[in-house]
Amino acid sequence: MTTVASRFQGVIPPVVTPRTADGAIDVPSLENVTRHLLNGGVTGLFVNGSSGEVTHLTNDERDTVLRTIVGVNAGQVPVLAGAVEQTTNRVIEEAARAVSLGADGIVATSQYYAISNAEENGRHFRAVAASVDVPVFAYDVPVRTHFKLPTGLLVELGREGIIAGVKDSSGDDVSFRQLVLAARDIPNFDIFTGHEVVVDGALLGGAQGVVPGLGNVDPAAYRRLFDLSVAGDWAGAAAEQDRIADVFNIVYTPKAGRVSGNAAGLGAFKTALMLMGIIKTNVMSTPMLALDEDETAAIKVILARTGLI
Amino acid sequence: MTTVASRFQGVIPPVVTPRTADGAIDVPSLENVTRHLLNGGVTGLFVNGSSGEVTHLTNDERDTVLRTIVGVNAGQVPVLAGAVEQTTNRVIEEAARAVSLGADGIVATSQYYAISNAEENGRHFRAVAASVDVPVFAYDVPVRTHFKLPTGLLVELGREGIIAGVKDSSGDDVSFRQLVLAARDIPNFDIFTGHEVVVDGALLGGAQGVVPGLGNVDPAAYRRLFDLSVAGDWAGAAAEQDRIADVFNIVYTPKAGRVSGNAAGLGAFKTALMLMGIIKTNVMSTPMLALDEDETAAIKVILARTGLI
Amino acid sequence: MTTVASRFQGVIPPVVTPRTADGAIDVPSLENVTRHLLNGGVTGLFVNGSSGEVTHLTNDERDTVLRTIVGVNAGQVPVLAGAVEQTTNRVIEEAARAVSLGADGIVATSQYYAISNAEENGRHFRAVAASVDVPVFAYDVPVRTHFKLPTGLLVELGREGIIAGVKDSSGDDVSFRQLVLAARDIPNFDIFTGHEVVVDGALLGGAQGVVPGLGNVDPAAYRRLFDLSVAGDWAGAAAEQDRIADVFNIVYTPKAGRVSGNAAGLGAFKTALMLMGIIKTNVMSTPMLALDEDETAAIKVILARTGLI
Amino acid sequence: MTTVASRFQGVIPPVVTPRTADGAIDVPSLENVTRHLLNGGVTGLFVNGSSGEVTHLTNDERDTVLRTIVGVNAGQVPVLAGAVEQTTNRVIEEAARAVSLGADGIVATSQYYAISNAEENGRHFRAVAASVDVPVFAYDVPVRTHFKLPTGLLVELGREGIIAGVKDSSGDDVSFRQLVLAARDIPNFDIFTGHEVVVDGALLGGAQGVVPGLGNVDPAAYRRLFDLSVAGDWAGAAAEQDRIADVFNIVYTPKAGRVSGNAAGLGAFKTALMLMGIIKTNVMSTPMLALDEDETAAIKVILARTGLI
Repeated sequence: MTTVASRFQGVIPPVVTPRTADGAIDVPSLENVTRHLLNGGVTGLFVNGSSGEVTHLTNDERDTVLRTIVGVNAGQVPVLAGAVEQTTNRVIEEAARAVSLGADGIVATSQYYAISNAEENGRHFRAVAASVDVPVFAYDVPVRTHFKLPTGLLVELGREGIIAGVKDSSGDDVSFRQLVLAARDIPNFDIFTGHEVVVDGALLGGAQGVVPGLGNVDPAAYRRLFDLSVAGDWAGAAAEQDRIADVFNIVYTPKAGRVSGNAAGLGAFKTALMLMGIIKTNVMSTPMLALDEDETAAIKVILARTGLI
Repeated sequence: MTTVASRFQGVIPPVVTPRTADGAIDVPSLENVTRHLLNGGVTGLFVNGSSGEVTHLTNDERDTVLRTIVGVNAGQVPVLAGAVEQTTNRVIEEAARAVSLGADGIVATSQYYAISNAEENGRHFRAVAASVDVPVFAYDVPVRTHFKLPTGLLVELGREGIIAGVKDSSGDDVSFRQLVLAARDIPNFDIFTGHEVVVDGALLGGAQGVVPGLGNVDPAAYRRLFDLSVAGDWAGAAAEQDRIADVFNIVYTPKAGRVSGNAAGLGAFKTALMLMGIIKTNVMSTPMLALDEDETAAIKVILARTGLI
Repeated sequence: MTTVASRFQGVIPPVVTPRTADGAIDVPSLENVTRHLLNGGVTGLFVNGSSGEVTHLTNDERDTVLRTIVGVNAGQVPVLAGAVEQTTNRVIEEAARAVSLGADGIVATSQYYAISNAEENGRHFRAVAASVDVPVFAYDVPVRTHFKLPTGLLVELGREGIIAGVKDSSGDDVSFRQLVLAARDIPNFDIFTGHEVVVDGALLGGAQGVVPGLGNVDPAAYRRLFDLSVAGDWAGAAAEQDRIADVFNIVYTPKAGRVSGNAAGLGAFKTALMLMGIIKTNVMSTPMLALDEDETAAIKVILARTGLI
Repeated sequence: MTTVASRFQGVIPPVVTPRTADGAIDVPSLENVTRHLLNGGVTGLFVNGSSGEVTHLTNDERDTVLRTIVGVNAGQVPVLAGAVEQTTNRVIEEAARAVSLGADGIVATSQYYAISNAEENGRHFRAVAASVDVPVFAYDVPVRTHFKLPTGLLVELGREGIIAGVKDSSGDDVSFRQLVLAARDIPNFDIFTGHEVVVDGALLGGAQGVVPGLGNVDPAAYRRLFDLSVAGDWAGAAAEQDRIADVFNIVYTPKAGRVSGNAAGLGAFKTALMLMGIIKTNVMSTPMLALDEDETAAIKVILARTGLI
């Protein structure tokens, strides 16, 4: 299905986790989202990431989600699974379960809650990688972990074959570019941006792909943007990016302060998917509030003007 | 054994978690620490807290630790158990297991990793409290969770009987004092400082007790300090506090940058206990380094001059 | 007037800077505040500090303020003047002008705006101290400068006679206590807390005094609290502190988000002084808003219940 | 000299401020740098910015710097002058002096040291703009001011004609792209990135130019990059950007912790210019250290391999 050379490249959305009205995992809706993404041309699936509300899921729920997506995907594209836990031994437990359920790669953050440092996180990734026989990606998300993975450490881990790449949600485009440059000669080292609205610049700078939460809503647009970049049509890529940036405005529809930052962004993705008929509810994991009627109406306007409904 | 009026008052150290040389939970050493604390006159035990490396423990390890301490304690003092997880549903799972293993109260932080807000954390504590039939304490530790629990929320939750008190490790003495004043008329609402070296001032300001990591090393000193404050001998309390502050210098012995902040503080407590013959090793949870020979020697000097060995 | 041994001890409020309705420095009101403070028994005056809106004043305004207060004081108590600027050479210029206008000591922060470090700030204080022949105090206010002066540096500067003491507004009571202990043997080294509601604990721990913004409103209360601590009546000091903490609630009266943090706190002090008839307006430096009628009414209630009007 | 349509577009380096061995402003060296920049094809000059060590300069020094550069430039390209001060009234004083000395536009940050908010900073820019008759640019540099200027405020100020554009050093490429999109229909509103190594992506996204500190060292490279982007040769622009990113490695040559972040970056620019024979020394403003021999040697290697010496 993909035209790209490496296994983990292109558009790999972090799949949202739909819930039923009474708060259970909504398996049929999750199957639907997965099909929607595959139909949109994604080149991979990232399961149990932040956009999948992974830290809000119990272990049983995490397994249900991964099992469901692996089943629908049936080997069409590679499946990356988050092993998102506070510390090494807990990540190792998560990673083992994910691999046993069919994950083709593991995504792990630095430690959090723990007050850690670079050396400790180096040992952390080494221990995680030693515990599984699939590729491990480092997920750099300091807005959540409050630790920025240093470029030097990531390059060192890449060069030694500990990690196979990086999902960068650091919001730091300077260090992102420097990582891309420093890792350019590492074979099969793949760097993804997690920021939905700067993908054109990231690809121009040499990134291998994108892990966009908004890709749940409009996977085809990200695939078009990626294909334009592969074709060298950068003006076209920027134009597609600008259109996508307008869709991204759905995350700003929640009324100031009514819901948390988490619930605003992820809630907007779910609400859009609900309006598009792909999932049944926009219910969030406890204790997050779902977007309300007004906020849903505002999202509807944006989806309509961008041609998504 | 305690002479204080309320059930959760006085000196309630967060018990460290000893490991064997090969990294397993060292149950006999943990039993020894527990006896050391009870002999030192502590009025409660806080199990599976940050100083117990809770987020570094697997669920099995957490259960082993709690079961061991509950066994040795045998009802002598109340046992608080940390249910320290990222989000509500995971905290509820932890809390249920802890209560089933004999915890007399639960300690939970705000959500972390999740980008949360005050309202969401209010619902978080309500849901956790509704799920157990023992008292729930809020643990305010923004240096780890990166969310400061607002005084207004804590008072509201206390007044409604959702939480029974607060363990404050916020490092914000202004908000601490304001919490004490605002909660003064809430019956049986207990506020503890988590900061080892400002206990005299906290008690003078009206706090009910202290949860000192350093209390693992010198529980009797904290009990003396607490008793002096109950007796109104504030100059005596301050003098005891100053002596304790000297013991606390053990946490500054690690060479700059060699180990993480986590490993420095908790490692110093473990190293001191090892030097005092109470636990067998100063091994830390992966990927934290244990303090080395030089650092151990520096701790020995401090323990000697403060009369602990 | 003071009964304390050292020159810079006790209660040294940072004097507010009243403005007329059209925004000029209101000299008669400033004279009145100064008399109000001296009548309240303060043991020193801190001019051109954060509470005096120093960074909002032009150089001419700073000079007017200092000249006015020095004139009214007429040598009754020592006058400390802030030389609050971003970098060394600019602080040196400020300090020279302040000394020429009669300051008995200089108060300087770390550098700010500049991305500095400990070594640089060490050289900063050395250069400032070398440029004047009056004592220099370090003002540790990381909430504004975004740099915490390390305890080790402060002690080193104290021991070498570069600085004569510290005004601590760090909000970090742990490092405050450690500073007090580490500097205990430095002759005439004076440490002040800048936090209005934890003065009893700070004095119990060994601090030499307090620089309370709220001292503009109720200087006599701080003097009573200080005298009780000198007399060893710590329960009395804590009771006075609790009463003061209620007065401090005036800073929380501004409606959420209507004014900045700066304008809320300083505006409350000015509004209280206006209600007490000591200054004419509660006008703030541009672009800060003055507290409005509702907020003023709320402050009036607090002043009434605490006996200040 | 420029081929770009608008007055403030293209490459506008923040000019460094050379000092003599004894710390005075080195006027001949400053003249030389200015000629070096004009010869390199810059389309504007930004005087008294962070890279010019503006907050380390006394007022007299700031005036000397501006007067010198205006003199050499002699109207060839527009000159923007920083009015970088903590608060409104002080910025207004700086802006007036700069305009009187020939500045064609003013660059001002949000307030700092003051604990401000969006509304206050809105009034701040309105007051500054009202005080001068040249264009005012907002300089968004939260790493120094610790306040991120909100996109909504910047767009509002642009739409009302208060500000003529933004120099963005926020390190937040998501908000940068959103600002570019939101301001696209404001006539003559110019947005510059301050980040040296992501200029290709910024221009692809629609920015009008760049204000690169590194542009002091290699102005011609930035001009080539800009011209390639105007010509739509994005692959060429990215290749030039990658070469520039290698030059940028000079800022990472200082030994860890030896000098401050400020002194590392600005010191590297000065050291490179010294090695290139354009300025006489790499002396920094007090209390910053100059780069040492080893660091200078490391910079020499980078300059050699990138063809700059």
